Amino acid sequence: MNVSEALNSRLEELATLTTTTYGKDFLLTWENSLDNLKAVMLVAEVLQILHRERKTWKIFDSGLAISIFRDNSTRTRFSFASAVNGLGLALSELDEVKSQVAHGETVRETAAMISFLTEVIGIRDDMYPGEGHTYMTEVADAVTDGFDHGILAQRPTLVNLQCDLDHPTQSLSDLLKLKDYFGGWENLKGKKIAMSWAYSPSYGKPLSVPQGVINLMSRFGMDVVLAHPEGYDLLPGTLESANHFAAQSGAQFRVTHSMEDAFDQADVVYPKSWAPMAVMQKRTQLLKQGDKEGLKQLEQSCLAENARHLDWECTEEMMKLTRNGAALYEHCLPADISGVSCERGEVAKSVFERYRLHTYQEAGFKPFVIAAMIFTSKVKDVAAKIRTFI
Amino acid sequence: MNVSEALNSRLEELATLTTTTYGKDFLLTWENSLDNLKAVMLVAEVLQILHRERKTWKIFDSGLAISIFRDNSTRTRFSFASAVNGLGLALSELDEVKSQVAHGETVRETAAMISFLTEVIGIRDDMYPGEGHTYMTEVADAVTDGFDHGILAQRPTLVNLQCDLDHPTQSLSDLLKLKDYFGGWENLKGKKIAMSWAYSPSYGKPLSVPQGVINLMSRFGMDVVLAHPEGYDLLPGTLESANHFAAQSGAQFRVTHSMEDAFDQADVVYPKSWAPMAVMQKRTQLLKQGDKEGLKQLEQSCLAENARHLDWECTEEMMKLTRNGAALYEHCLPADISGVSCERGEVAKSVFERYRLHTYQEAGFKPFVIAAMIFTSKVKDVAAKIRTFI
Amino acid sequence: MNVSEALNSRLEELATLTTTTYGKDFLLTWENSLDNLKAVMLVAEVLQILHRERKTWKIFDSGLAISIFRDNSTRTRFSFASAVNGLGLALSELDEVKSQVAHGETVRETAAMISFLTEVIGIRDDMYPGEGHTYMTEVADAVTDGFDHGILAQRPTLVNLQCDLDHPTQSLSDLLKLKDYFGGWENLKGKKIAMSWAYSPSYGKPLSVPQGVINLMSRFGMDVVLAHPEGYDLLPGTLESANHFAAQSGAQFRVTHSMEDAFDQADVVYPKSWAPMAVMQKRTQLLKQGDKEGLKQLEQSCLAENARHLDWECTEEMMKLTRNGAALYEHCLPADISGVSCERGEVAKSVFERYRLHTYQEAGFKPFVIAAMIFTSKVKDVAAKIRTFI
Repeated sequence: MNVSEALNSRLEELATLTTTTYGKDFLLTWENSLDNLKAVMLVAEVLQILHRERKTWKIFDSGLAISIFRDNSTRTRFSFASAVNGLGLALSELDEVKSQVAHGETVRETAAMISFLTEVIGIRDDMYPGEGHTYMTEVADAVTDGFDHGILAQRPTLVNLQCDLDHPTQSLSDLLKLKDYFGGWENLKGKKIAMSWAYSPSYGKPLSVPQGVINLMSRFGMDVVLAHPEGYDLLPGTLESANHFAAQSGAQFRVTHSMEDAFDQADVVYPKSWAPMAVMQKRTQLLKQGDKEGLKQLEQSCLAENARHLDWECTEEMMKLTRNGAALYEHCLPADISGVSCERGEVAKSVFERYRLHTYQEAGFKPFVIAAMIFTSKVKDVAAKIRTFI
Repeated sequence: MNVSEALNSRLEELATLTTTTYGKDFLLTWENSLDNLKAVMLVAEVLQILHRERKTWKIFDSGLAISIFRDNSTRTRFSFASAVNGLGLALSELDEVKSQVAHGETVRETAAMISFLTEVIGIRDDMYPGEGHTYMTEVADAVTDGFDHGILAQRPTLVNLQCDLDHPTQSLSDLLKLKDYFGGWENLKGKKIAMSWAYSPSYGKPLSVPQGVINLMSRFGMDVVLAHPEGYDLLPGTLESANHFAAQSGAQFRVTHSMEDAFDQADVVYPKSWAPMAVMQKRTQLLKQGDKEGLKQLEQSCLAENARHLDWECTEEMMKLTRNGAALYEHCLPADISGVSCERGEVAKSVFERYRLHTYQEAGFKPFVIAAMIFTSKVKDVAAKIRTFI
Repeated sequence: MNVSEALNSRLEELATLTTTTYGKDFLLTWENSLDNLKAVMLVAEVLQILHRERKTWKIFDSGLAISIFRDNSTRTRFSFASAVNGLGLALSELDEVKSQVAHGETVRETAAMISFLTEVIGIRDDMYPGEGHTYMTEVADAVTDGFDHGILAQRPTLVNLQCDLDHPTQSLSDLLKLKDYFGGWENLKGKKIAMSWAYSPSYGKPLSVPQGVINLMSRFGMDVVLAHPEGYDLLPGTLESANHFAAQSGAQFRVTHSMEDAFDQADVVYPKSWAPMAVMQKRTQLLKQGDKEGLKQLEQSCLAENARHLDWECTEEMMKLTRNGAALYEHCLPADISGVSCERGEVAKSVFERYRLHTYQEAGFKPFVIAAMIFTSKVKDVAAKIRTFI
């Protein structure tokens, strides 16, 4: 398929969709219709093609994009920077130490104060169950309030760069990789994906990636198996919705406590560590109480518990269980690679190396997914606008 | 008034002014003629209208704007970021920890070194009496020296984002809100504004806001009453100049030690905490000496002194004293709101809530005031340039 | 010479050169042919002229430039910010604390992850012998790998903003100042430059400036004398290459342990402190071992050793030894000026003041040298592109 055909096929599919993205934030995939999700992904593909052709896709002459990172990040930070730059915005990072947020300023006020000429706000707040998504909706309400009262000349679009519930820029990138790898969304139906916990010597990894994956892939007809040792539960609401989505698309969703079971005949494996929900909740509580001793004890006990599951590693032996021994390996990166970034980790070095470029391609969709979320929120007639760039 | 009329009325008034802003820094309102101040405010209004109409007001194709923040800031930081972005410049923040300023590099040299392709330098340095404005003039002298000797191809314009003496981007925003609220500068004549100290549990708030307000509003014919408990003095020179400006415009300026007296029949109230000048001076001295014990004691005694004035709060009862019980409440934000950001603070929650959107509008002028300071310094024929954007 | 002549003479000389800069990184001057170096410098001069004429030299519509600073910097940081802004790129700084580099992420992966829409990566990593240049080549290999495998749509150009071996943006700026001062490259032949160690009360200054200077000036036919107290050795390989370059250009290169000897009849003096190679190597080792006590002892002994050479100062008496007592003084800034930035330092106040504007001009070339490195790497027909700007 040449470039022109690749672009046209996306534009044709876009034309068949009924979307409600215009003027909306992108916080959770499960708030969005299937058509909305497809539209974002199609636009992401289009922008990636335009970028490879060195064509512009700038839709702003000026304006700010603000990022608020409440957790470390390399790839998401630079993906956001790249996306907003390509769209024509200047990035300003809200550093909560430098700014007066540290002085107890309320969310409502801060959100308005930074938004007078702001088109986009990207937020990462993923560490505390019950906090991240709530914070994002507070910011969303604040800018709506500011816009409705004429304080803001434009309402900034919010983009969830990872919260306690979902990591939509990641899961949509994961899905775009699957679409590309298997040759179209239709080909995903009935494919089995193993979203599996894996051992890591680190502690406190957020839950949003597995929660996002089980809720997205199930909507596209994939059979999703969530695997983890007993106790490593995700937030219960995310299991319910995954069940619901699977039923809706005619796919299966189930939970197992055996990595082998999950990997058996899987077409895709996604082995990744996370902290048990109960630990994350207790941690949040201890942090709020400023209980340093309690935090230290929690970390110790959590690492000790992790260490009981060293065998949850994506080894060559595990890979042999998958369909033809050749499932696609996915990861949000960085992976804990045994013998590379740690002694024992999520994945064997040889497995990771074999799929390394695939994981880079997976990550490579992210800037375009972010840009597409903004594009579909800011541009009313998306296809018409795209045609002006071709 | 429609958009076209709103723009034309500003351009017509601009044409009547004799300004000396071209090629000049904006450091203190009281260094500027009334015509200069009006020009900056009219251009700010014009740029805000253009922004609401989604029209560009870009005057640069490229170039840097540098910000130097020596104190925390959210709104001023983002206002500056927004302003320079709208004008076409890229923001670079000089972080004095990362940079070699920390290595004892002289101001003169640093200013030249960062300015080779720099159009604007915005500085906030408000904590130490005798320091902030002095530092800004040193930077100004340095870039003049660099430009005069051909080291710099252009002389960056300095903008005072708050110093020890004045906070012009704030006070001009406060004034623009008053102009809008009362329907024109003419209507400000004879109106009474109470610039009052108010209780806050925090310590070491700078003096530049009250100093800026008494020196600006008095020039526009407002009767200014400065109120504070005994001992909470401002820098003496700023009282002298406020007296002078009041005499010049036929307005009154006086100091009282009663909040009630100040609020009585006031048309505008501006209740805000600050630290006594003497405390700020002692603090500066102790900081220079590295006397941590002395600093701790000063903070303790200052907070104890503050606590003797808990009744300096803008309550509903206090508001009833104002004209028709309905004075406009102004604040530079963030306010210390009783029961919200602290147990007891500057203002009652119900009062703040009633005027919240007004304070947001007040703050909303700031990006455009900053942009207008730069615009009127960089563009020779301001009106002609504006007409190209309409 | 008017502007048009100045531009044309550069373009004519450019036309005589055979360069291999297109698509290449700029890491070390000694990896580049004389024609490459001349091309970069000619383009730097052209861009500076265009800037002074307020003409654009933007070659990008959008795209990121990433800087990675592993050591403090003011002038290089802002030079890079200025250069990439002038070329049309947006700057993103990779802060290794905020990012997940701190989490043990490998260089290969990080480099790919931040480069999906990145055109330039500028790196400063100068503190550890054997580390900086190695790190840069790892990043270079990583983006080559990403580009070759289709992960990256474009290969970012790397620019060395100072490593353990070379500081090419500095030395080329130093050389451009000499070219301007003496009236052309031809006039540098046979001129004597004293690259001399000088006393400083600080510790651990990198070696890349003297190493860069002796390896660059020798190629342009200057007689280079490297002077330092016994023990303050540079990395041996850099002496070998300087010898080789001197032989090639018919110039002389020699080492002396007498500042007087070096200054005698010198046309240019470059007195600057650095730490002995052996100290830097031991320091690197101790840092890796986390030996804080050892590091403290090393600093003490190094400062004590430095203090034995207080007389290595560029005083008026020393300057009298130079040709007609009027050698040009060069420095990369900031200089340790006796009685200004320290009690006793590299240079007497009166000497520095006399040459201050010369050192500013020297520094003023740097943004354009950086821009020229990028320009000559990104643009195939450099002269043709420049003609579109004139």
